[in-house]
Amino acid sequence: VADHPLEALFRPAGIAVVGASRTPTKAGYQILKNLVDVGYPGALAPINPAGGEILGLPSRPDLSAVPGPLEMVVMAAPAAATPGVVGQMEARMAARGDIRAVVCSAAGFAEVGSEEGRRWQEQLAGFCRRHGIRLLGPNCVGVIDVEARIDTTFIADTSHLPGGISFVSQSGAVGAWLLMSWTAAPAGGVGFHRFLTVGNMADVDIIEGIEALGADPGTRVLGMYLEGSPRARRLVEAAGGVAVRKPVVALKVGRTAEGAQAAHSHTGSMAGTDALYEGAFRQFGLVRAASIGELSDTMRAFDSLPLPAGNRVFLYTQAGGPGIVGVDAMAATGLFQPAVIGPAAREALRRVLPPIASICKPEGHADITAAALAGHHVDGLEVVLRDPGVDAVVFITVATLFLDLEDMARRMLDLLARLRGEGIEKPLLPVILSGNWVRPARGVLEKGGLPTYDSPEAAVRVLAALTRYAAFRRRAGPGGGR
Amino acid sequence: VADHPLEALFRPAGIAVVGASRTPTKAGYQILKNLVDVGYPGALAPINPAGGEILGLPSRPDLSAVPGPLEMVVMAAPAAATPGVVGQMEARMAARGDIRAVVCSAAGFAEVGSEEGRRWQEQLAGFCRRHGIRLLGPNCVGVIDVEARIDTTFIADTSHLPGGISFVSQSGAVGAWLLMSWTAAPAGGVGFHRFLTVGNMADVDIIEGIEALGADPGTRVLGMYLEGSPRARRLVEAAGGVAVRKPVVALKVGRTAEGAQAAHSHTGSMAGTDALYEGAFRQFGLVRAASIGELSDTMRAFDSLPLPAGNRVFLYTQAGGPGIVGVDAMAATGLFQPAVIGPAAREALRRVLPPIASICKPEGHADITAAALAGHHVDGLEVVLRDPGVDAVVFITVATLFLDLEDMARRMLDLLARLRGEGIEKPLLPVILSGNWVRPARGVLEKGGLPTYDSPEAAVRVLAALTRYAAFRRRAGPGGGR
Repeated sequence: VADHPLEALFRPAGIAVVGASRTPTKAGYQILKNLVDVGYPGALAPINPAGGEILGLPSRPDLSAVPGPLEMVVMAAPAAATPGVVGQMEARMAARGDIRAVVCSAAGFAEVGSEEGRRWQEQLAGFCRRHGIRLLGPNCVGVIDVEARIDTTFIADTSHLPGGISFVSQSGAVGAWLLMSWTAAPAGGVGFHRFLTVGNMADVDIIEGIEALGADPGTRVLGMYLEGSPRARRLVEAAGGVAVRKPVVALKVGRTAEGAQAAHSHTGSMAGTDALYEGAFRQFGLVRAASIGELSDTMRAFDSLPLPAGNRVFLYTQAGGPGIVGVDAMAATGLFQPAVIGPAAREALRRVLPPIASICKPEGHADITAAALAGHHVDGLEVVLRDPGVDAVVFITVATLFLDLEDMARRMLDLLARLRGEGIEKPLLPVILSGNWVRPARGVLEKGGLPTYDSPEAAVRVLAALTRYAAFRRRAGPGGGR
Repeated sequence: VADHPLEALFRPAGIAVVGASRTPTKAGYQILKNLVDVGYPGALAPINPAGGEILGLPSRPDLSAVPGPLEMVVMAAPAAATPGVVGQMEARMAARGDIRAVVCSAAGFAEVGSEEGRRWQEQLAGFCRRHGIRLLGPNCVGVIDVEARIDTTFIADTSHLPGGISFVSQSGAVGAWLLMSWTAAPAGGVGFHRFLTVGNMADVDIIEGIEALGADPGTRVLGMYLEGSPRARRLVEAAGGVAVRKPVVALKVGRTAEGAQAAHSHTGSMAGTDALYEGAFRQFGLVRAASIGELSDTMRAFDSLPLPAGNRVFLYTQAGGPGIVGVDAMAATGLFQPAVIGPAAREALRRVLPPIASICKPEGHADITAAALAGHHVDGLEVVLRDPGVDAVVFITVATLFLDLEDMARRMLDLLARLRGEGIEKPLLPVILSGNWVRPARGVLEKGGLPTYDSPEAAVRVLAALTRYAAFRRRAGPGGGR
């Protein structure tokens, strides 16, 4: 793994930023700042002909002046600067031969469709090919490795909490969306491992990105945004090769003919017919997300929750109406059975829940009512999670005057830790209504490692993905460590 | 309208709160506090046998001691107190005869299924029937009229911005969810007019709620959460009677057999087969929301946006990938045509957008690219909105380092005001990615009266609802003022 061909992108020794700038709204400033802020452990060299310091680092007039080692060059200068930068890199390779990876963040290359854009891209790609240098982009947002403390993106102030999710994207905007929305999440971040946007794919393409992250032991969940590839079959096979070992979640656009046409115009990808992808996704056990939000929710759940042992789900709700929304959503999947709990568990629920609670009417359902306090929520939940007839729990609550949601959140985390200590691990999906109103309580749960949901439908979609993937893995048999 | 039978619920002269309390976590405290906080203009009487002041108001030992007028009694005392409260109300009616409405917030009545619960409910309902008093509940969250400054709910610190949405709910939790998530919205609230939860429907039922809000001239959009009714046909006819004059948006649960069973268990409603509702909804031009979030988004859009004149939609995006997600979502509805703009507009876009922008490839689509600054966003948008071939615009942008989103938001509002001054009014649906990261910019737009969306799919769902309803109204012909 250490010498996987893309390791140079994630673990370079020494980085130069060409087009480094003192202007905070320029990519050439922000890339350098991100590398400084994450504490990149290698040598950082801003390249700027005007000289002077940038962010406390001495800038160099060109690449030849970088002391080295210099394994990565990040190109933030405009596309028109490409011939000059390639010239510098040629000289550096002749003199030192140390560059192993180029990340080209600038746009204005082949994606524009102009003659000169194509020429610059080919000049850059040709240089890299000749020297065995790996090229990411052009027109990409860049690469992050949380553990290795590298962030070549130009997105400001994103959080870098460690986790098991790695994400590869054929859209910089989708990648940026993910990083920013995670940073703005209730817990102030969502843990992840590696992040890669492939841009114009002049060298490193989406398939190689999938293979590299799939082979990476720090990646527990592989997520991707896909527009397509001329090698569609190869793409799904690469993803399928990963899915026998770890969950793969994909948002694949071009579902419609119109979307496919737009994808082609965007990155020149051949989207292929959606039916081909859909069938292959199912065959290879890939999880398909229907929206950007679902993609994020599903990746997070796979990284944080145990897989369910079966499809028997208990819906435990303090909110009547939203509970029915959840029942509808579960039934519409055609995937779940109501979890029938035993007589002792029913009796225990009657004992710990408010007297007006509705228990097992219908089966697999408890409405603990708005009279429920934090203790009721968690005591009843314990009964349900302990019952051997329950594979997973969807939990729904809405803020009330009487309910201390943060206290409930802390007690819920305690309960899960206690059960884990006894070997009881089942997916619990807490829906905490309503929106930002309940952000503090959601923050407590998410900081404690338990993702939360803002609608019953969102939780059910995620549980459906966990349940389908668990069934796939059981069918596929042991295919490697997860 | 002034003497519509439910006006006593929205405009009572004098309110007593039975079970008023000094304990902030009690409903009997919060209801009184909400009435004080919204500035209820009539006399407020806390009823508490212990006497003393509550929230600066002298409490009375019982209803007979309230000076009056006393048109509404809010019951916050436990269900077991019902016989005593009914006795007090009997005495009050004998002596003064001024009570016109009762809101019973307490739970523990017929919904529990207990013998005594049913008896208390029947005792309360029977008393109200005999005296021609309208009863809301029991087991309801209550009533709000923003203009009349009444709020009998026990939900703390919700915002009461004026607007045209009225909402009636068969679930207190869904109603509470709406109020809290609106309060936590980027603009610090969402304008609405009236709010009603019908609880156990011992007297006022969902049908009468629909009729009352439908007849109310301050209600421009009628939203509802429905579990069902024994008079299903009557229910959809009542809603249909409103829909010829103003948009009606419904989240109807019990879509599945399992959901219908849960609904029956929750409020005893006969959910009816979903196919019946679905067919009737279509026949009567009712807009069906598929989720709680979509319900809120759709109501807000109807209250804030003009209806589209047709189905020709331009997708204007700064973010390539999310733009394709939007194209897919639009195409999947089977409802829209790409808006083909004229040669002059194409030329104008080429002039005002960044050189690398992709214009009308495919038709009805522009990718202005991440190079776009605030001015690019808004200048190009103006070109598109002015083109006579465009009925509606879905606008997508993701925060970048170079883009001042709040400046863009202010310019966008200016543009819309200018166009409105020239008689150009078309629905514009701005998708501002990513989540809370862009809350300030979304706040600017929403304070300016333009709802925003956090995913392309959400915007497309809302535009589909506007487009379908506009077509229904055109087919139905002029059916009253909107």
